[in-house]
Amino acid sequence: MKEIKAFVKPFKVNDICHHLIEEGFPNLSVSSAEGTGNLENSDPSVSAQFSITDSPVAKIEIVCHEKDVDKIVSIISVKGRTGNPGDGIIYVSDVEKTYRVKTGLENGG
Amino acid sequence: MKEIKAFVKPFKVNDICHHLIEEGFPNLSVSSAEGTGNLENSDPSVSAQFSITDSPVAKIEIVCHEKDVDKIVSIISVKGRTGNPGDGIIYVSDVEKTYRVKTGLENGG
Amino acid sequence: MKEIKAFVKPFKVNDICHHLIEEGFPNLSVSSAEGTGNLENSDPSVSAQFSITDSPVAKIEIVCHEKDVDKIVSIISVKGRTGNPGDGIIYVSDVEKTYRVKTGLENGG
Repeated sequence: MKEIKAFVKPFKVNDICHHLIEEGFPNLSVSSAEGTGNLENSDPSVSAQFSITDSPVAKIEIVCHEKDVDKIVSIISVKGRTGNPGDGIIYVSDVEKTYRVKTGLENGG
Repeated sequence: MKEIKAFVKPFKVNDICHHLIEEGFPNLSVSSAEGTGNLENSDPSVSAQFSITDSPVAKIEIVCHEKDVDKIVSIISVKGRTGNPGDGIIYVSDVEKTYRVKTGLENGG
Repeated sequence: MKEIKAFVKPFKVNDICHHLIEEGFPNLSVSSAEGTGNLENSDPSVSAQFSITDSPVAKIEIVCHEKDVDKIVSIISVKGRTGNPGDGIIYVSDVEKTYRVKTGLENGG
């Protein structure tokens, strides 16, 4: 299994997730973070929590089969795109095992 | 070392963490996120932040020795279980190196 | 590419990130979490969200080239250090691929 972690603009989250769900990838989580760097042009709001950061970002996490990585990356980048700097970045990492809390058993498929 | 990342129901966090600490795994972090999909039946509350998501979820992160993975996964799944859909999921990934901030040195053990 | 994930004291975030940016690593994100264990002495505040946890922690996430890991770990540990227990921990994991949302293309360098 692979973990896809995407840092995107918060106002793009609903559109991205709507399309992920529609394409059959409903198991995802979204959380809030703050960013700097290439993200800095994306939003003029000032973070209240850490003065060094300058942009709210949303983090989408989704674990999927290796065969689905390309499709999910494509959905996130097409739907998350504005064409301006700071649209965000997507990371793909390996996940060795997944388990369901409900059963405690490995979730092979 | 291995990283265990568990997405669980927020009201289960205290019980899960209490047992992890009691069993000798005190170094963990908990953060809040929002989920969709299989988590959708778990809680009728509506997320205020992202309209696409429908359930608050808690994310527990814990880095451990490989030999402790099974025990930690077992604690999380036993204590996090309700038996209903949407109890959550646990991911295990590899961590190549860990360092202590206090010393800047690798934390091999 | 490698992912560096650091759990540090929140009041150290601005100094750490300022130096990371200054040294040429501007693409990072910061989020809030709560911790237990070795972090427990670091702050007497009580978490409102999860009663089991006892310390707010900040999580810094930064993806970098393998050659930059040592420098980034050094900046985080030097700038995040107080010398007291609970200064935090840094994890390094492998990232298989990175993509830019703006283009949908792999970001090799």
